[in-house]
Amino acid sequence: MINSCSNGADRRAEVGVFGSGAWGLALARLFSLQGHHVTVWSESAQTVERLSSTRTIPLPGDPDLPTEIALTTEVKDAAAEKDVIVFVTSSRFVRPMAAQVAPYVRPDAVLVCATKGLEENSMDTMTEVIADELAKARPDVRPAVVALSGPSHAEEVAFDMPTAIVAASENEEAALLVQRLFSNEVLRVYTSSDVRGVELCGALKNVIALACGIARGLGFGDNSSAALVTRGLAEMRRLGTALGCDPETFFGLACTGDLVVTAGSLHSRNLRCGKMLGEGVPVDEAVARVGAVVEGLNALPAVLELSEKLGVEMPICEMVGLVVSGKIKPQDATALLMGRELKTETPDAYL
Amino acid sequence: MINSCSNGADRRAEVGVFGSGAWGLALARLFSLQGHHVTVWSESAQTVERLSSTRTIPLPGDPDLPTEIALTTEVKDAAAEKDVIVFVTSSRFVRPMAAQVAPYVRPDAVLVCATKGLEENSMDTMTEVIADELAKARPDVRPAVVALSGPSHAEEVAFDMPTAIVAASENEEAALLVQRLFSNEVLRVYTSSDVRGVELCGALKNVIALACGIARGLGFGDNSSAALVTRGLAEMRRLGTALGCDPETFFGLACTGDLVVTAGSLHSRNLRCGKMLGEGVPVDEAVARVGAVVEGLNALPAVLELSEKLGVEMPICEMVGLVVSGKIKPQDATALLMGRELKTETPDAYL
Repeated sequence: MINSCSNGADRRAEVGVFGSGAWGLALARLFSLQGHHVTVWSESAQTVERLSSTRTIPLPGDPDLPTEIALTTEVKDAAAEKDVIVFVTSSRFVRPMAAQVAPYVRPDAVLVCATKGLEENSMDTMTEVIADELAKARPDVRPAVVALSGPSHAEEVAFDMPTAIVAASENEEAALLVQRLFSNEVLRVYTSSDVRGVELCGALKNVIALACGIARGLGFGDNSSAALVTRGLAEMRRLGTALGCDPETFFGLACTGDLVVTAGSLHSRNLRCGKMLGEGVPVDEAVARVGAVVEGLNALPAVLELSEKLGVEMPICEMVGLVVSGKIKPQDATALLMGRELKTETPDAYL
Repeated sequence: MINSCSNGADRRAEVGVFGSGAWGLALARLFSLQGHHVTVWSESAQTVERLSSTRTIPLPGDPDLPTEIALTTEVKDAAAEKDVIVFVTSSRFVRPMAAQVAPYVRPDAVLVCATKGLEENSMDTMTEVIADELAKARPDVRPAVVALSGPSHAEEVAFDMPTAIVAASENEEAALLVQRLFSNEVLRVYTSSDVRGVELCGALKNVIALACGIARGLGFGDNSSAALVTRGLAEMRRLGTALGCDPETFFGLACTGDLVVTAGSLHSRNLRCGKMLGEGVPVDEAVARVGAVVEGLNALPAVLELSEKLGVEMPICEMVGLVVSGKIKPQDATALLMGRELKTETPDAYL
């Protein structure tokens, strides 16, 4: 039995979780073990049926899914009268999901977004997408929205391996509530007020992970990867600062922490895809072989557009763009990066 | 053949390298391939003889050691009339080495220290040790001292895998000279003026690597490791800032970059030692099994003393201290860290 953090709230919350993937179920499991009443929504009746009968999370090792968790295909069941509603679908479903959930949201509910990514075209972050749909459907209410991010493989959380994440919101009270409700001996939640920075990191780090993958594909080692992580963080921070984010955020769990996990694990789809690109596999074939969304490729055009528009130097992201588009070979990208004008590590422009 | 960076100096320098371990030889090889005249000093006539006959660096894969590199056991041969003298012995030999080298140093020579660590008892950094010995023996001259640090496995540099490091000095000209002389398509050198910060990072990161090892030994995964890296960086930075270092340094290659490599690779002695501690192996036995110096254990007492003296909260280092001394079990250290008072990610105290 998971115990709440000694300084956590004892209050039992009504929690709705939208999304029945591994991360959604791993979170639902933790919340339930802490004593909260959890309802998980899935689009698929088949999934609800399977989860109800197996009561395991579909992950290697079959972690248990507590019987206390209610499972439903009815949006209303997981949204109405909830204290906290968690969005944890894949990024392109967040907008339609928020629209479906909106009519049932209690005015004082806290909406948590555990999905990372930027919306294509609008380049809105996921909490912006949620807030936007809520505002359209329910101009009368403005529920608080919190982004939940950080280095968190579901495979590990589902087996109670200690994990630290960040709950970011402009609404400090809402971030503190999420921290108090969900911190326990497995999950340690830090708060942040820089929600845009936290969400930007979640998208940007995937582009740097692609670069680390390309270096691996070229046969390079840990030195190259560490250099790309460190200099990649520097350029993420340059862009974030230009967009008005707190430079400190890039030092935190959603950025440094998540990039360390993403760039260091071949479980990462971005790293795997990058590795194939480095080996000379064309991008379409690499994506097909990964067999799932490669978020870094989705974020790349927006990142390059922002970089150009704001005049922010992002040489690593630029090289990833050139390799992905087939304009230069990975070997030449390396030579171009290594041959750039020599620099001081911390130009004043960072500060 | 390694080409200099297009914006590097063409000038051929006279370089003496003190230390014939893997990192010293990997650096000597790069410098020689760039056209510099390199003399490597070793204490052992046997080593000189073996290297002269094999002309390979004793590393897996037998990387070549160019025939242009002179090898000697005479201190004078590697020190007199040199433009640049590189110290790359193990940390406890830096002081006696500097004393031996001092009489031959040209007044305008640049002394480079590629050895990481803090001296026991004095807690001086390695460049401070070198400057100290020079001042004793040669009060007439004050050669510039530069620290060279960053994520750089010799095994990879010796096979031309791209690597980025930092050359830090209070003497900007000296740092720029090192950058110009030694940057090429394999090694990209950034400059920094925060020499103390760079050297402190090289010692502190090993303590955090021990913590990551302990977590691995407890069976935890990438989430725990990324959390320890991120929160470890936060506490390294708190200590560094209290000691007057530039907080930015902790975002750079010598800190974030080197920690990513050290905490992510089981080649790291600190990680291996920590893993055994996490598995319940007593510290003496763990050190014996590693079979070499575990720098994190050497740095630990100094770090804890500084933390207490300056009133800087360093919960991860503190837990490593308690586990190493056998005062608490690794499991209990985890529970204590996860159960700490809940926090915001970026308290004002960091800034």
